[in-house]
Amino acid sequence: MTLFTPDRPLNLTRGGRLDLVEVRYETYGQLSPRRDNAVFICHALTGDAHAAGFQAGADKPGWWDNLIGPGRPLDTDRFFVVCPNILGGCQGTTGPGSLNPATGQAYGLDFPILDMADFVSVHRRLCEHLGLSRLLAVIGGSLGGMQALQWALSHPSDLANACVIAASSRLSAQNIAFSAVAREAIMRDPGFHQGQYNQFGDSPDLGLSIARMMAHITYLSEEALALKFDREPERDGLNHGFGVDFAVESYLHHQGEVFLDRFDALSYLYLSRVMDYFDPFASPQATAAIAAARPNLLVCSFTSDWRFGPQHSRRVVSHLERAGVPVTYRELASDFGHDSFLLPIPRYHDTLRAFLDRAWEVGS
Amino acid sequence: MTLFTPDRPLNLTRGGRLDLVEVRYETYGQLSPRRDNAVFICHALTGDAHAAGFQAGADKPGWWDNLIGPGRPLDTDRFFVVCPNILGGCQGTTGPGSLNPATGQAYGLDFPILDMADFVSVHRRLCEHLGLSRLLAVIGGSLGGMQALQWALSHPSDLANACVIAASSRLSAQNIAFSAVAREAIMRDPGFHQGQYNQFGDSPDLGLSIARMMAHITYLSEEALALKFDREPERDGLNHGFGVDFAVESYLHHQGEVFLDRFDALSYLYLSRVMDYFDPFASPQATAAIAAARPNLLVCSFTSDWRFGPQHSRRVVSHLERAGVPVTYRELASDFGHDSFLLPIPRYHDTLRAFLDRAWEVGS
Repeated sequence: MTLFTPDRPLNLTRGGRLDLVEVRYETYGQLSPRRDNAVFICHALTGDAHAAGFQAGADKPGWWDNLIGPGRPLDTDRFFVVCPNILGGCQGTTGPGSLNPATGQAYGLDFPILDMADFVSVHRRLCEHLGLSRLLAVIGGSLGGMQALQWALSHPSDLANACVIAASSRLSAQNIAFSAVAREAIMRDPGFHQGQYNQFGDSPDLGLSIARMMAHITYLSEEALALKFDREPERDGLNHGFGVDFAVESYLHHQGEVFLDRFDALSYLYLSRVMDYFDPFASPQATAAIAAARPNLLVCSFTSDWRFGPQHSRRVVSHLERAGVPVTYRELASDFGHDSFLLPIPRYHDTLRAFLDRAWEVGS
Repeated sequence: MTLFTPDRPLNLTRGGRLDLVEVRYETYGQLSPRRDNAVFICHALTGDAHAAGFQAGADKPGWWDNLIGPGRPLDTDRFFVVCPNILGGCQGTTGPGSLNPATGQAYGLDFPILDMADFVSVHRRLCEHLGLSRLLAVIGGSLGGMQALQWALSHPSDLANACVIAASSRLSAQNIAFSAVAREAIMRDPGFHQGQYNQFGDSPDLGLSIARMMAHITYLSEEALALKFDREPERDGLNHGFGVDFAVESYLHHQGEVFLDRFDALSYLYLSRVMDYFDPFASPQATAAIAAARPNLLVCSFTSDWRFGPQHSRRVVSHLERAGVPVTYRELASDFGHDSFLLPIPRYHDTLRAFLDRAWEVGS
């Protein structure tokens, strides 16, 4: 869907604009006649618009299928669920791999630097297109949670409720460090060609797979890796060499490999960098709007998450509380690290269900 | 110093042998007439033989200078301190970058896979060369602590005391995962040339610097990174781009860069892999010898170390206690993560001083 055109371009937070923005999105459930049952989902760094159900021929459902569907916490018998691919992504929405209409070539590093607020601008235009003037809820985990938070802060009257899961309002030096090394691995890959790799029929696969392998270590907790793999050999006993010898090595290789088929290195750079710079409460006016509109906020974190762990969520809660915003905080027990927000952990799903049931009762 | 020659080769734990092994080492202090004041230091992954003092023209002292010297915990007025570069290293001791006498070319990946016990074999030959039949103590941190532990387990009558600092007897899946990604970054670098990069006048600098940057994140705690850098911009304000923008990025770039001048990619592969496989207590006979000889063990860990944190040390202590070995354990408060073992943390130095003072009084 073309949502921004030269006569109504996307003006970007840090200056510049995009004259043409396509957005791919999916919806699940039916929009009510009163248009008051819409729940908007924002995906994480490497997610896409396909949040639930099976695409033709696919053997795996969408990334949040365990949460979305009839009788599930995001009950599609009640809710109209919308999930777009993010601006700057590579799964159908305009990003650095898209053609720059001004040059006829892929943008590459000429794509503008984005800001969390730009994602929200695109999401709002999609809502306008769908005739959704007010959302029952905006929900997201990780980078998705940051979008939900940004939306709730900058346009709180758009939404009655927001769920900010395993997210952060301020990356730590360690968070930035991991992302910085991942980006260096990509940009130093000879296949990167200053971001114009498509023109060279090349791609920085080496760097992107290293970035993904490293990121995967940070998505799982030390406990989860130990439970899953411990020191198990990949095959029958350890061979003692530099090949794939431990099961955990095999897992990482596989994750690095399959990622290349579905993700673009430039999108990795652009989207990860938005997180580094995200610091919405730094502005003294940050909570003025949300303090007036007072939507209901749910903030969740997972005990073993060491990427955006409980301390990140507690900081968000503390800012919101000081602004007098009604906020519920849940620190959920889980051994699965940051990835927990994608998993059907009963206590977590119960929490989301209860929050959304109440949202449904109260209405938008 | 040539310590192994074809007539007395180094027979390796996993089969094969090395006919020629050179070892570079340094000593500090004087060996007593009774040869009973020797303290042997084993260095960590990227350390070298230069543990203390200043080399000609150097502006930085050896890597453990804060610990070694007159009046310091490793008091050179009392002790004769020996520190060799490790087998497989690249700072004067034979390693994969050395010439293979059989081919006249650098070994590259033809260098044999090493085992912790091979390091100990080389250290013992060095002791023989120096006329040290019994050591007052063996000390090491991280990989150095693992060597000290291996030595104490396999040849406990060589030593009266051993200090195992910030080490592990069994890497976790997460530990292995970080090392595996570092090695992949090196081996997938086009400059690696199957390990024969010297012949091509090339080197896998890209991969080695990425490996080093990633490793540095794991050497510091999240707290230490936050204290040191928080989200400080590198220069005057953030530029919003993909360059070095945050101070923590500048730090990592620098660490990645300077490492290339002093370390070899093949040594990184070989030495890190020894740690992955190290699991000395797996053998049912592991503690038979040490239970009979009963040297004194000091095991130390640091609270914020998330590479080889307290749980790794507690496991070592538990194995030793079950074997009836006299073992003292200290869990030292520090915000500086794994790197703490290199720092002059007062409580830590007090602990080492007290242990070594007692060693001195009791004698070897």
